[in-house]
Amino acid sequence: MNEGQEMEEHFSLLLDKLKEQQMAEFRELFLALHIYEQGQFYQSIDEADRKQIYSYLSPKELADMFDVIEEDNENMKDYIAEMRPSYAAEMLSEMYTDNAVDLLNMLDKSQKAKYLSLMSTEDAGEIKELLHYEDDTAGSIMTTEFVSIVANQTVRSAMYVLKNQADVAETIYYVYVVDQENHLVGVISLRDLIINDDDTMISDVLSERVISVHVGDDQEDVAQTIRDYDFLALPVTDYDDHLLGIVTVDDIIDVIDDEAASDYSGLAGVNVEEVSENPIKAASKRLPWLITLLFLGMSTATLISHYEELVSEASILAVFISLITGTAGNAGTQSLAVAVRRLAVTDEKDNNFGRLIISEVLTGLVTGAVTGVAIFIVVGIWQHNFPLGFVIGMAMLCAITVANLAGSLIPMLMDKLGFDPAVASGPFITTLSDLTSVLIYFNIASLFMQYFV
Amino acid sequence: MNEGQEMEEHFSLLLDKLKEQQMAEFRELFLALHIYEQGQFYQSIDEADRKQIYSYLSPKELADMFDVIEEDNENMKDYIAEMRPSYAAEMLSEMYTDNAVDLLNMLDKSQKAKYLSLMSTEDAGEIKELLHYEDDTAGSIMTTEFVSIVANQTVRSAMYVLKNQADVAETIYYVYVVDQENHLVGVISLRDLIINDDDTMISDVLSERVISVHVGDDQEDVAQTIRDYDFLALPVTDYDDHLLGIVTVDDIIDVIDDEAASDYSGLAGVNVEEVSENPIKAASKRLPWLITLLFLGMSTATLISHYEELVSEASILAVFISLITGTAGNAGTQSLAVAVRRLAVTDEKDNNFGRLIISEVLTGLVTGAVTGVAIFIVVGIWQHNFPLGFVIGMAMLCAITVANLAGSLIPMLMDKLGFDPAVASGPFITTLSDLTSVLIYFNIASLFMQYFV
Repeated sequence: MNEGQEMEEHFSLLLDKLKEQQMAEFRELFLALHIYEQGQFYQSIDEADRKQIYSYLSPKELADMFDVIEEDNENMKDYIAEMRPSYAAEMLSEMYTDNAVDLLNMLDKSQKAKYLSLMSTEDAGEIKELLHYEDDTAGSIMTTEFVSIVANQTVRSAMYVLKNQADVAETIYYVYVVDQENHLVGVISLRDLIINDDDTMISDVLSERVISVHVGDDQEDVAQTIRDYDFLALPVTDYDDHLLGIVTVDDIIDVIDDEAASDYSGLAGVNVEEVSENPIKAASKRLPWLITLLFLGMSTATLISHYEELVSEASILAVFISLITGTAGNAGTQSLAVAVRRLAVTDEKDNNFGRLIISEVLTGLVTGAVTGVAIFIVVGIWQHNFPLGFVIGMAMLCAITVANLAGSLIPMLMDKLGFDPAVASGPFITTLSDLTSVLIYFNIASLFMQYFV
Repeated sequence: MNEGQEMEEHFSLLLDKLKEQQMAEFRELFLALHIYEQGQFYQSIDEADRKQIYSYLSPKELADMFDVIEEDNENMKDYIAEMRPSYAAEMLSEMYTDNAVDLLNMLDKSQKAKYLSLMSTEDAGEIKELLHYEDDTAGSIMTTEFVSIVANQTVRSAMYVLKNQADVAETIYYVYVVDQENHLVGVISLRDLIINDDDTMISDVLSERVISVHVGDDQEDVAQTIRDYDFLALPVTDYDDHLLGIVTVDDIIDVIDDEAASDYSGLAGVNVEEVSENPIKAASKRLPWLITLLFLGMSTATLISHYEELVSEASILAVFISLITGTAGNAGTQSLAVAVRRLAVTDEKDNNFGRLIISEVLTGLVTGAVTGVAIFIVVGIWQHNFPLGFVIGMAMLCAITVANLAGSLIPMLMDKLGFDPAVASGPFITTLSDLTSVLIYFNIASLFMQYFV
């Protein structure tokens, strides 16, 4: 029996206990599961059974489970709504603050206010503090459940503090050292605490070179720091170095995943995370981009229609339209991907705007030249018409160079203007490059018309 | 003064000490840095200065730094080669085994053998065990530096074991419990050890539902498990449940990042991680795809040339070639991205091949119908020619549907055949869909020729 089957049987047993209203057996079986698996079970049953669960589990037990359920689950709102309000409020207070905030941010304003008013002033205060941080900043993903101590004590007393907070802190593996005014002055890992003698002073063993991020820093930068330094958590401070919270590695994994999915979605011109299996719904998500690009494509068609006479004189020109637009589009997509990636991984200050553009245009010239010469020879031989080959090759060279320019310039400009460069989607670049390619192609063709017809 | 400047000054001071041969001052300044920053400094200086470092730092100190330097750095080979062989071998033995293996895998066979022969039998043995695991499996990213204990002891004695291993283990935050035959029977976190009384028996507090992966499991599945359960590390076993090693979360972040970059690269038809700023080099990386697709594009051109007569009769047809190929290409790219993403995030068994294809084709029909009607109206009005509008709209509907079929079917087939579906690049799908779109377009056009000319 494999793991999947085992889990399925366990789930159906759990469901039986729930339906038979055998609370004690249910609790024993349910709490024996890992909280992630509890979440899987919870999400697999229907409303009536879930309501049964709310009477069998304490708000704290449910909160532990809610801490690991994917926060981007669409059903979260319904789950909260089907609980008694006071139960929901208590569960929210028992969750790690960062997760509770994420959850509350899914509800509408009046709902949010209702649950906050049902909490203790202290819990509500902690949550409110986090609620106002902007999306995608360190503040929006940090939690306030960390362990901080002062330097002027021994390892023994620090371990004592740790033991007391181990139950509520999101991680106890890093302990942050602060001064009387809560300025972050150092960090010590639990590993170091364990290695050192009980009577050692914290001030003698703490690491003063503590890496931290500011509360307004972009979450991508926070992720990059955690990745570079191989940290399990990172402290977040305000601009006067007061310790406000920590960001833990599990949240960073979600950030990395989300950013990757959004870059990928951008390149494809479709939100890959939101696509449903229902064709109507799926189509409605994809059509806005398709229709927008269709109208951009209409300008290309209009442009070609101006050259209709040229085409009727030399219908051979029609043969190479899709070859030129297609190849330039491919080259532009490559440029776009390189530019978006470079913007994502390099620091703001290292982004030499001009250098990347020049490098991409030069790359376009080289690829264009090679591709152009290849097509010059192929078309020349195939059509027994080297002047025509020259026109196609030349158009290819220019179209690829312009596509590379557009592919790198547009995301760079969007970045400068404060937009996410990944929004400059691949389909947009290819459709735009269709327009420029056609313009280039027919102009070169009409210039050399007399030689190849 | 911001952090960047501060670091720069620190680096130039370090370099001065190195050049002035002030070993004591250099060591003090250097070792005060975080190991990631040590790595940044090390990688910023030239060979002569690096050689100086090898005489100032112990192999262990250098190994700590090498543990965090990105393993995909191209210069790693050179770094190793410029060390004395015995120094390099000792450094490799001091590194975490998984990282040493990654490094050794970059060297050629004879080099690998040389360093292994210079190590102690024990160290070489540990490395050799990991060397033979296939790329991208749990075995290839696991490390053997974990802490394992037997259940039949108290928390106090377990903590004693932990303290002794804290220096060499890659993580001490999870302690794995094994039986006499090294079968994995449970896990206990350091958090639990700390909370519980010193006299508690491990067997009373360990968690028996330990989640583990098999040594041959795909690294993507390992990453998914760590992500789902919010683990900091995951035990790796053989098929008889013997504990072989652990995978830590920092390696998982690299896996997630690499997989995302490779999906993104696939969609763009260019390896975004390997692109250089040198236009010749960059072009040489991109040209293989471009030229391959150029020849696929040539088939489209050849196909159109068969319809040249049709075009010379009705040159208006040329006007809409790029609109139809472009829009179908955009739709195909959307389908491709959705299919690749779905293959990546869903379990093998849940992948209902047929359902996804049908859903994509239906989505294609819906988007195609909407787009087709829109273009029918626009072209009908613009050209005062509704039969022509009908031909374009009909071609659009069919081309989009076929593009969606290709965009979903091709990655699915590649997955079934054991290839990475992400290799079915966006440019490939658009170029292929150019071909089918043109075929559809001209066939429909010749069918209705008499009505619109």
